[in-house]
Amino acid sequence: MSDWFTIEWHDGAVVMLDQRRLPTEEVYLTYTDVDGVATGIRDMVIRGAPAIGIAAAMGVAIAANSAGPDDDLDATITEAVAKLGATRPTAVNLFWALDRMEAVYAGVREQGLEAVQRALTDEAQAVLREDVAICRQIGEHGAPLIEDGARVLTHCNAGGLATGDYGTALAVIRMAAESGKKLTVFADETRPYLQGARLTSWELDKDGIDVTVIADNAAGHFISRGEVDCVVVGSDRTVANGDVCNKIGTYTLAVLCKRHSIPFYAAVPISTIDLTMADGASIPIEERPRDEVANFAGTPTVPNGVKVRNPAFDVTPHELVTGIITERGVARPPFTESLRALVAKS
Amino acid sequence: MSDWFTIEWHDGAVVMLDQRRLPTEEVYLTYTDVDGVATGIRDMVIRGAPAIGIAAAMGVAIAANSAGPDDDLDATITEAVAKLGATRPTAVNLFWALDRMEAVYAGVREQGLEAVQRALTDEAQAVLREDVAICRQIGEHGAPLIEDGARVLTHCNAGGLATGDYGTALAVIRMAAESGKKLTVFADETRPYLQGARLTSWELDKDGIDVTVIADNAAGHFISRGEVDCVVVGSDRTVANGDVCNKIGTYTLAVLCKRHSIPFYAAVPISTIDLTMADGASIPIEERPRDEVANFAGTPTVPNGVKVRNPAFDVTPHELVTGIITERGVARPPFTESLRALVAKS
Repeated sequence: MSDWFTIEWHDGAVVMLDQRRLPTEEVYLTYTDVDGVATGIRDMVIRGAPAIGIAAAMGVAIAANSAGPDDDLDATITEAVAKLGATRPTAVNLFWALDRMEAVYAGVREQGLEAVQRALTDEAQAVLREDVAICRQIGEHGAPLIEDGARVLTHCNAGGLATGDYGTALAVIRMAAESGKKLTVFADETRPYLQGARLTSWELDKDGIDVTVIADNAAGHFISRGEVDCVVVGSDRTVANGDVCNKIGTYTLAVLCKRHSIPFYAAVPISTIDLTMADGASIPIEERPRDEVANFAGTPTVPNGVKVRNPAFDVTPHELVTGIITERGVARPPFTESLRALVAKS
Repeated sequence: MSDWFTIEWHDGAVVMLDQRRLPTEEVYLTYTDVDGVATGIRDMVIRGAPAIGIAAAMGVAIAANSAGPDDDLDATITEAVAKLGATRPTAVNLFWALDRMEAVYAGVREQGLEAVQRALTDEAQAVLREDVAICRQIGEHGAPLIEDGARVLTHCNAGGLATGDYGTALAVIRMAAESGKKLTVFADETRPYLQGARLTSWELDKDGIDVTVIADNAAGHFISRGEVDCVVVGSDRTVANGDVCNKIGTYTLAVLCKRHSIPFYAAVPISTIDLTMADGASIPIEERPRDEVANFAGTPTVPNGVKVRNPAFDVTPHELVTGIITERGVARPPFTESLRALVAKS
């Protein structure tokens, strides 16, 4: 990624790109205390499960670094974890990152303040570093699936702005481009939150990758006209049989791919594969607020009193999925076996 | 329709609901000269091919009524037709209505100013009256296809706001509701112009029909969960083999209907059936301005310089169409025969 980043640790402070202001303004916010980091997560300065996890880990490190020799360190860490954990209660990576920081703290707390500060600072940066590595490995495994000259369609933002670095679906696109393949990308605008229009197109354009934004409604038109060679998306949860839960609209794309015999790939970190769930039917689908659909920039788009339904995710059944790209390789059908093998691999 | 109208002739003036201001404001504009009517059409106070045709016919009548005994009536009518014809050059009904008014003028011009004024005023109102009758006949033929308790999904605005009265797809829904059936309607918001969110939900809500707006992305989710019983849309052009050209996103809905074995209907006036075209492949697809996708209410949603493609229509192949509802009955496959028979019927 050329001249921007999602989140970094700068000399004891957390610096985040304010994603709420994209694409019109690029503003970085610097947080030097845990309250600031918690506010940044809650107010969606940063979003995307992996990125939220990184921010939370850095928030715990900042809390430790702010403590003095007379402070009750146990209380400081407990309070920081509670504050950060209350920001976005549905984001799984948030709790995973906080658990990890607490475990490190438990291991070094007897060694005194300086050791704790060093260990937690190192661990927060390790969370970021590992996410960067996972993104690049996803990209390496996925890039060979993209042919030179391919026209790739993606949905929502499974990009650097949702992770520490290259993203998941967008890592596949980036690594294919870096390997010298000439690509063009269609970014669905992704109503209602417009992550494709605002975020995906912004970061691909920044990286010099040819990108065209389309209304979600237009994907079927371009696919039917033979103007799309494959679809690559992310996934919030992938279950044992290969059913993929992702941003609303993903299922429709997979149905279109099937009809037109073009590949449909999901690019997912192993940490989002949930083998405890047999299939996607029981994944709970979050319904988000009416206003995301009914208002834009303060202007109502739906009459007062008219109902709105706003499911945030849908489930794509495994029979529509060509492959699931992870940092440990690409799972192919039958997914029940291939996913289990990848998760077991280390 | 309860307490509103799209366009009416009031005592020598044309009164139109200003659709640009829906759903937040209901403002009626009154035009008493042909320049006003032309501006109203060009600026999209009124839209929808049948409604534009009605407005143009009324514009010609107003021009005749404004003429005095010393005016050159031929020049007045020619100038009015030219002005009105320059407003929305792609709307077929506009030229159909203007041709019709010119033919009436040619038939009475020898009879003097008063006869011309009376004939053109009558004809303009006949254009509206006939459109009203066609809408209701479409509704009568379509209503039996909708079962009691049905959950009907529609796209864009094929409603009263696009016609003189009940609409086409929405006439089917209205007449089913009037016959005592309990219905619920999903209105796709219909990016980028939001006709579903702004217009369809507004007019159905006005008529007391249960309506819920969803992002276009959510249609697949609800269809796959068994929450939609049928899809009814309009069509801008239907060709000889039954291929249907309609608002972008329609094709995707038809593909989803096929996958889930639910009926997909298009409701269309006979005047929009084009038997001269064998199939939909050669229908030209208008690409509309970048800004419709890239800006909303003055706020950019796509970064400067990033490309946008904005096709306004797509083509649904006949094999995905369950039935084509017209004012003369419902065409069923094979459409090559059934459409030809309906067009020939009078």
